Amino acid sequence: MHLEQRKSNFPTMQDQEIPSGADGSVGMVRQQTVVSFKSRPLLNLDSGRKLGPITQVYETYGRLNRARSNAVLVFHALSGDHHAAGKHSAHDSKPGWWDNMIGPGKAFDTNRLFVICANVLGGCRGTTGPASTDPATGRPYGLSFPVVTLRDMVRAQKTLVDHLGIRRLLAVSGASMGGMMALQWAVDYPKSVRCVVPIATAAYQSPKNIALQDVGRRAIMSDPDWNGGQYYGRVFPARGLAVARMIGHISYLSGRTMYAKFGRRRSAGNGRYAFDFAPEFQVETYLQHQSKVFVNRFDPNSYLYITKAIDYFDLTDGNARGKRPRTTLDFRDGDIRPAVARHFKSTRAKFLVLSFTSDWLYPVDRSIELSDALKMAGREVHHETIQTTYGHDACFLEANRMAPIIRTFLGVDA
Amino acid sequence: MHLEQRKSNFPTMQDQEIPSGADGSVGMVRQQTVVSFKSRPLLNLDSGRKLGPITQVYETYGRLNRARSNAVLVFHALSGDHHAAGKHSAHDSKPGWWDNMIGPGKAFDTNRLFVICANVLGGCRGTTGPASTDPATGRPYGLSFPVVTLRDMVRAQKTLVDHLGIRRLLAVSGASMGGMMALQWAVDYPKSVRCVVPIATAAYQSPKNIALQDVGRRAIMSDPDWNGGQYYGRVFPARGLAVARMIGHISYLSGRTMYAKFGRRRSAGNGRYAFDFAPEFQVETYLQHQSKVFVNRFDPNSYLYITKAIDYFDLTDGNARGKRPRTTLDFRDGDIRPAVARHFKSTRAKFLVLSFTSDWLYPVDRSIELSDALKMAGREVHHETIQTTYGHDACFLEANRMAPIIRTFLGVDA
Repeated sequence: MHLEQRKSNFPTMQDQEIPSGADGSVGMVRQQTVVSFKSRPLLNLDSGRKLGPITQVYETYGRLNRARSNAVLVFHALSGDHHAAGKHSAHDSKPGWWDNMIGPGKAFDTNRLFVICANVLGGCRGTTGPASTDPATGRPYGLSFPVVTLRDMVRAQKTLVDHLGIRRLLAVSGASMGGMMALQWAVDYPKSVRCVVPIATAAYQSPKNIALQDVGRRAIMSDPDWNGGQYYGRVFPARGLAVARMIGHISYLSGRTMYAKFGRRRSAGNGRYAFDFAPEFQVETYLQHQSKVFVNRFDPNSYLYITKAIDYFDLTDGNARGKRPRTTLDFRDGDIRPAVARHFKSTRAKFLVLSFTSDWLYPVDRSIELSDALKMAGREVHHETIQTTYGHDACFLEANRMAPIIRTFLGVDA
Repeated sequence: MHLEQRKSNFPTMQDQEIPSGADGSVGMVRQQTVVSFKSRPLLNLDSGRKLGPITQVYETYGRLNRARSNAVLVFHALSGDHHAAGKHSAHDSKPGWWDNMIGPGKAFDTNRLFVICANVLGGCRGTTGPASTDPATGRPYGLSFPVVTLRDMVRAQKTLVDHLGIRRLLAVSGASMGGMMALQWAVDYPKSVRCVVPIATAAYQSPKNIALQDVGRRAIMSDPDWNGGQYYGRVFPARGLAVARMIGHISYLSGRTMYAKFGRRRSAGNGRYAFDFAPEFQVETYLQHQSKVFVNRFDPNSYLYITKAIDYFDLTDGNARGKRPRTTLDFRDGDIRPAVARHFKSTRAKFLVLSFTSDWLYPVDRSIELSDALKMAGREVHHETIQTTYGHDACFLEANRMAPIIRTFLGVDA
């Protein structure tokens, strides 16, 4: 495997400029890049296809200790990226997506830990994906980009961790899709992680969630501007992606949050109904706004590839280490926990499973099922359920509730 | 008001050809039509606009007794129509949408009752709607059709009931949107109904449901073939409507039903994943099939108008009898039951509220809230919750569980 280092991998204090810690921010950060699989052997994908070269963009927060034993790999969710904490410039209006979880004194305490986050394979924020140039044609891959799995994404990030000279991670963690990747890491690299923290996730993608993501994909592929995935340099299929994002947003909120956040209030001042089809209720204008913002930062093809990878995630199948996805357990058979347990027999890692009461995308039941399976495999498991009305979004909002639980589990307060 | 009678309104045995009743079918039925508001005064709409002439198609099952006291008006849901029971020809593969509820010995027992069901105003099955010809232009209304409310739809059906010479209905009933219309009837015509049976519904459309329907409308209006609603005689905006229907279908099923019905099983025989973006999981092919069937029988503009009417339904607002929709209660204020109760002060009807445990579109909580409000108004209320895994679809599937409850409530067994 060939590696190329574009920038220093080991951040200095200059990279981080960590402030007093009063505001618990990692301060200014900068994106780093590593290119691997530049020539044979290329990355072997679950589909049987091979891919390379692979560029991965990532960020790190905190400092790797001499023993290289304090590294935490954080995986982002569907719409996330490698910019998990801090700001790139003082002009940034918002910090990274998990800034409330990563920083001095936070859940992933950068005074003690070295946190790594990379954009996933198939993404659109700098890591190789469908919008990247296919070296074979000199044009964007589009749909000629291979369909990847979460295992493929994890496999790519393993090369990044190796590249950083880290043999064993203190922890892997992530929420939603990120939680699935954390589980996949423990399955595929059982000896190279000590603590696993899957949040608001499950051991497999449920049929309801497959259905929701399928509709999003149909919306994108139904947009004539999508043009079979070859829209780069042409009209961007914004309408389809906007609809897909709206469906996603609804699934991230809880019914109670929607009552509290929007009720049946309308955006227009006057009390009368508009009697037309323009967005009128606050929940409609909110969804429209969110989808517009998303359309400006996300690639529709990446949405197809990443949602498909999530739908393929299934630790109830014969998808054991090294093997490719095969038959799926028939859920009518009932108890799928033993099938899930098989995957965790060879790791010695301990697990902290976090779930949220109002999350209907990845309900608490899925975390109970996962925890039971991990116990069946003989693992040390702590399952904590946080009472909240934020729904699935709680994994990004309930940082203050998660922090003490995670800090204790990781032993950073010890 | 001017009326024109295209066919006999009072079905004879020839109309009905009710069989032995062994199979509990109403047998062969035929659609009837009434045209009203052919000239001034036209129908006054909540929007302030006037509409006419209005054609309404409807079907009736059973026979109206001499006292005209055994009539039950049944309202259909979003995707339904006036064909609620029986078949139009021996070649019909399926009977009407509520055939398991309407017939000899069934919940709405046609041996005792005279059941009426009409296609709603704004619909696309024969009643005047956006696809109808605008007499002012000689072309289809399209978006020039006025935005109607559920009250407008009920108001139109009141003229049908008057036309049938029925002063007072034994009962009004319906599920989902149909349940909202049953409630609206009791609010607007408090003296002209004795029993109200709202099923799997609520006193107002929730923000979550507004959001789900809004995404469906965006999908339709994002389809270039929609062409601002003027696609009649041109390319039909099938893709947008298909996406809207898929979203609807997901909301009608429960998570547990999806596990039982689909699990993570794939349509293709071989166990390997397809590694492409074609529908692959059974839940995906199911949604694709359902949306194709729907696209062949429903008008996208009607989907916009009917879903908007549902979103406007709100008995928590100042929308009392005769008044037009005004400000909406802020749900942050908490208890909305007193506001709902105000609407039911003047009726003397008794209510049977039916809800289903796994229905997350119109959860049991909404029925409890409605029942409490009706009690606050001094009404006689029976609220029955049926334990089921069918989700919102239970209102079409749990006929055998609903039948004894409804028969007892209506006193047909007395």
